[in-house]
Amino acid sequence: MQVVVLAAGQGKRMRSVLPKVLQPIAGRPMLAHVLDTARALGSDRICVVHGHGGEAVRDALDAPDLAWALQSPQLGTGHAVQQALPHLDDGQMALVLYGDVPLIGQDTLRRLVDAAGADRLALLTVALDDPTGYGRIVRDAAGQVQRIVEHKDASEAERAIREVNTGILVAPVARLRDWLGRLRNDNAQQEYYLTDIIAMAVDEAVAVVAAQPDRVIETLGVNNKLQLAELERAWQRQQADALLEAGVTLIDPARIDIRGHLSCARDVQIDVNCVFEGTVELGEGVHIGANCVIRNARIAAGTRIQPFSHIEDTCMGEGCVIGPYARTRPGTELGNDVHLGNFVEVKNSRIANHSKANHLAYVGDADIGERVNVGAGTITCNYDGANKFRTVIEDDVFIGSDTQLVAPVRVGKGATLGAGTTLTKDAPAGELTVSRSKQITITGWKRPVKQPK
Amino acid sequence: MQVVVLAAGQGKRMRSVLPKVLQPIAGRPMLAHVLDTARALGSDRICVVHGHGGEAVRDALDAPDLAWALQSPQLGTGHAVQQALPHLDDGQMALVLYGDVPLIGQDTLRRLVDAAGADRLALLTVALDDPTGYGRIVRDAAGQVQRIVEHKDASEAERAIREVNTGILVAPVARLRDWLGRLRNDNAQQEYYLTDIIAMAVDEAVAVVAAQPDRVIETLGVNNKLQLAELERAWQRQQADALLEAGVTLIDPARIDIRGHLSCARDVQIDVNCVFEGTVELGEGVHIGANCVIRNARIAAGTRIQPFSHIEDTCMGEGCVIGPYARTRPGTELGNDVHLGNFVEVKNSRIANHSKANHLAYVGDADIGERVNVGAGTITCNYDGANKFRTVIEDDVFIGSDTQLVAPVRVGKGATLGAGTTLTKDAPAGELTVSRSKQITITGWKRPVKQPK
Amino acid sequence: MQVVVLAAGQGKRMRSVLPKVLQPIAGRPMLAHVLDTARALGSDRICVVHGHGGEAVRDALDAPDLAWALQSPQLGTGHAVQQALPHLDDGQMALVLYGDVPLIGQDTLRRLVDAAGADRLALLTVALDDPTGYGRIVRDAAGQVQRIVEHKDASEAERAIREVNTGILVAPVARLRDWLGRLRNDNAQQEYYLTDIIAMAVDEAVAVVAAQPDRVIETLGVNNKLQLAELERAWQRQQADALLEAGVTLIDPARIDIRGHLSCARDVQIDVNCVFEGTVELGEGVHIGANCVIRNARIAAGTRIQPFSHIEDTCMGEGCVIGPYARTRPGTELGNDVHLGNFVEVKNSRIANHSKANHLAYVGDADIGERVNVGAGTITCNYDGANKFRTVIEDDVFIGSDTQLVAPVRVGKGATLGAGTTLTKDAPAGELTVSRSKQITITGWKRPVKQPK
Repeated sequence: MQVVVLAAGQGKRMRSVLPKVLQPIAGRPMLAHVLDTARALGSDRICVVHGHGGEAVRDALDAPDLAWALQSPQLGTGHAVQQALPHLDDGQMALVLYGDVPLIGQDTLRRLVDAAGADRLALLTVALDDPTGYGRIVRDAAGQVQRIVEHKDASEAERAIREVNTGILVAPVARLRDWLGRLRNDNAQQEYYLTDIIAMAVDEAVAVVAAQPDRVIETLGVNNKLQLAELERAWQRQQADALLEAGVTLIDPARIDIRGHLSCARDVQIDVNCVFEGTVELGEGVHIGANCVIRNARIAAGTRIQPFSHIEDTCMGEGCVIGPYARTRPGTELGNDVHLGNFVEVKNSRIANHSKANHLAYVGDADIGERVNVGAGTITCNYDGANKFRTVIEDDVFIGSDTQLVAPVRVGKGATLGAGTTLTKDAPAGELTVSRSKQITITGWKRPVKQPK
Repeated sequence: MQVVVLAAGQGKRMRSVLPKVLQPIAGRPMLAHVLDTARALGSDRICVVHGHGGEAVRDALDAPDLAWALQSPQLGTGHAVQQALPHLDDGQMALVLYGDVPLIGQDTLRRLVDAAGADRLALLTVALDDPTGYGRIVRDAAGQVQRIVEHKDASEAERAIREVNTGILVAPVARLRDWLGRLRNDNAQQEYYLTDIIAMAVDEAVAVVAAQPDRVIETLGVNNKLQLAELERAWQRQQADALLEAGVTLIDPARIDIRGHLSCARDVQIDVNCVFEGTVELGEGVHIGANCVIRNARIAAGTRIQPFSHIEDTCMGEGCVIGPYARTRPGTELGNDVHLGNFVEVKNSRIANHSKANHLAYVGDADIGERVNVGAGTITCNYDGANKFRTVIEDDVFIGSDTQLVAPVRVGKGATLGAGTTLTKDAPAGELTVSRSKQITITGWKRPVKQPK
Repeated sequence: MQVVVLAAGQGKRMRSVLPKVLQPIAGRPMLAHVLDTARALGSDRICVVHGHGGEAVRDALDAPDLAWALQSPQLGTGHAVQQALPHLDDGQMALVLYGDVPLIGQDTLRRLVDAAGADRLALLTVALDDPTGYGRIVRDAAGQVQRIVEHKDASEAERAIREVNTGILVAPVARLRDWLGRLRNDNAQQEYYLTDIIAMAVDEAVAVVAAQPDRVIETLGVNNKLQLAELERAWQRQQADALLEAGVTLIDPARIDIRGHLSCARDVQIDVNCVFEGTVELGEGVHIGANCVIRNARIAAGTRIQPFSHIEDTCMGEGCVIGPYARTRPGTELGNDVHLGNFVEVKNSRIANHSKANHLAYVGDADIGERVNVGAGTITCNYDGANKFRTVIEDDVFIGSDTQLVAPVRVGKGATLGAGTTLTKDAPAGELTVSRSKQITITGWKRPVKQPK
């Protein structure tokens, strides 16, 4: 089977410089969702018909398995499919999809493809509560599809039909090529409509069979930001339902956003208002507190992420306690039983088992051993304004509060740094190192008084 | 046209010390919304009838274009409008609004006003799915409004009528004055009902015409906190729909709160759970991350606000990267390409182009030049316990981590401050300035051991 | 009255290692909600029938007023109630509840219990819009309950009945004992069904009376995580409605989570997306900003909690201003008019009236007097790696920025600490104490340049 994806529309009503099919659902272009689905069907070839902002579309989504056909000018859906014909093989079936109908599902399409055949055109139709504006599916007494009548041309009786055309269809390429060649544009819009091939098929006694989607939402197109938002929420709800089905405890399925792939082991609990981006794996018993943002992370069993944490490109071991208000940035690797507390930032650093940085700290470009206590206010000075250097803190070190470690620097195993130390040279293992001025009291000093403005 | 706004009710069921009409929708008193609408209609005069908590209402919302009439005691809606009569001119039309019906819309009212005339009373009516409890609009065979029958007095047939009285009406002032003077309170509540003037108009062959609102929600009153919450959400959804219509990408239209005015250029994207207060302007391509609170801000094109940021009374240039967890307080002015990172607070400061404060810093009362790097943990000591002073940091300065700048102090162009410096005097341009104790190691020192409790 | 709670089910579809009845609603096991309700009815005895994961259930919820009966193997609901019979007294009535029907309400059950009697079995039934799958209540012409017919055995006419069995019932113990002894398992599942006692009662001319719940949701059981989430939201909406009814202003009743008990005085306002856990008391006029998490706290009148604050096991006085991004941990006690600002953590500390810690600070194990100013970046060094010590700061102290107080240490009344001080010994009252190195400028120093990688 071969797939044609129509993706040339401008989407004027989106009021955006971005071509319509690049507008995101769950953080990815709508067209990318459609391409994923086409690929999952095991398509032999995928041809994307692009037009408005076409280079932007191609630049954003090009891949070796895609063929691109430019539609310019844009003279209707039939004309669009025509542009793809050079890429299609007569011996095969062609599935026509739309870059702005992003939630079309694999199961639905498989059913549609199975219904089609060398002598059969298969059309995806859907029953709408309010079919106003859509092309109605007219069937004969035997239930055979006879034709599609557009809303404006429909009789009263035809308007009562709730089954409508989605535009998604599968047809033999040879037939399609023939039909498209005979399309006419003698209509109000002067466009070539793909829909007109249905009448040709019926005329030629090619059976037109219909299949229905699992859910109406799969067939909905996006023409404005309201519809984009509606599909976004539908998609998110679908993700949430899949997680619930898999046994994840979601405190509010209406308040979780997944932009990518979230996989959860047994007994994961996710509190309200969390956002997951990229690929996130949560181990058994992981708890994610309210209002967390987690992007590309692997979090092992039993770890608890407390509210307001922001995790990015991070691996965490088991039994860690993170946050609230902890931020890990790319390159963070935590061992088991690591604690990161409030207002702590970690970047491009490894922190080994049982170490803790519980308060107000910046750990950047550091290698921290096991059982290390990083005091409140500790800062790794990893940047000299031009270059970045690493800080090494060996096992069992105690870093006193408000210490600055001017990298490159090494703190030996079991060393202690006194509070307020500016460490510019290595600190020997097992010893106390400190830089500290004498505490003095200046007697007789008077506090400033409020000055008149 | 002149407007009377009835705003004397106590709102006992609100269970609040605040008078009912001061209860907020979108952060502003309900009455303020009604006054805005009245003003937008180009009213000649607006008279607010106040009563319970009347001084509080007047103090909260007084303005030169408002007349105030005290209703005390409160003897019904007819009695309330009577209090406004001294402020009304017989030659004009009077529109009666309600301080606790906050979402009434301009378009609806314009239609109502246009329907009224010197010989015509115009009444706003609405069809409710469940009209229980409301006064029904009884029309004759020709569709003319005949009378309003209260729910308790209605026959079975009348109760089936879904068109109800909203209480909002427009009448010629001279007629109104006459009718109000003839109201009687021989009813169960011993109150003078404004509604009774409809029967008088019909009796006198004054045509009663009806207009309908654009949306039912415009006519709903607030009597308790549940209804207040319902109108709050309806108002917010209305704001969200307007943004979507204008092309803004909202990840969840049910999770945005706008309390004031939010204007967005092209291709703005707003993630879930953001709150906007006051006047906020977002430039082209601005992205607002999840869970941000933004109050009175102007944010220029291409700037990205990352999650958990709290922005207040701030101007930002183009291409800035802010947050996560950045807080800007009043008087913050950022140039272009400024970066503020996590756990950074800026107050009453100017930060010029390309400067960065990426981690754990307090910048208060400071003027920072271009290309300045403010290290992690930097603090401007702007307050001596009695007075506040400014810190000046010139272009191209590098401030080492954990530095304190004891204001008033100036750091010259291109200067470098070493990590951990307490800067009490100006630092010369181009040089390295530092205050630092010698790092020493105390050999033989023993770590404390856990003491028994 | 005596209560039997069936709590032996595994809940395979929950896909969890936790027994089903321990799955949480509002942070507490479903079974705990049912036990609370049973206790509130003034039950004479409560017998929990446990089975799968039985010891876990008992360990989690055991209490002196509970009797436990083990059901093993599990042979149906009738068999389950049989296990409880040894704990029941023949002279009493028995109420049968379910550990996985967590929202059953007291008022509903009181009505059910009142309907029952020594010669009357009372059954809780509910009318469902879609009764598919449930046992229908078949009544005779006089409206008397005749029998319960299971969905699969029901005729077309019976399937049209919308009144269904909830399984919750009250029966005289002596009768129940007799009926249960005569149950048979000659059905497809080979189980003993409690439902079968209804037919026995009718046969013996024991009246079967039906009562209805206040709300359908009270009768819904939980078999999977989707249903758990649905009841979680229903429960939360019920809490929100109760708060609104009591006069609390909720900006979005769909975005508040209460896991425990939240009590609010007059004119409390709660912004979007807040989570309350444990016991929280909010005084008159308290405002809670967006996105706060508050657990076990008493917050006095007029205090404002700003967005992103995380409050735990804390008492606050009146008129405090807290946050944004303030975190208080267990043992925090604040006086009146205390200010905690952004990125400030307080733990196990008392802070007296009018004191402030506005920026980037860690206050742990401290006693702070009145009118103290804790500068930005101040850290109490309360932990030496082995033991924790207290810091005492007396009234009217001014702590300069970035100061470390190495506990145990005391700062005398009215003392001032200079910025950047590491305080290792007590600071005398009224004087300026400082530890500071001389500021020097190293002329001719060259900045590092970018090194090639």
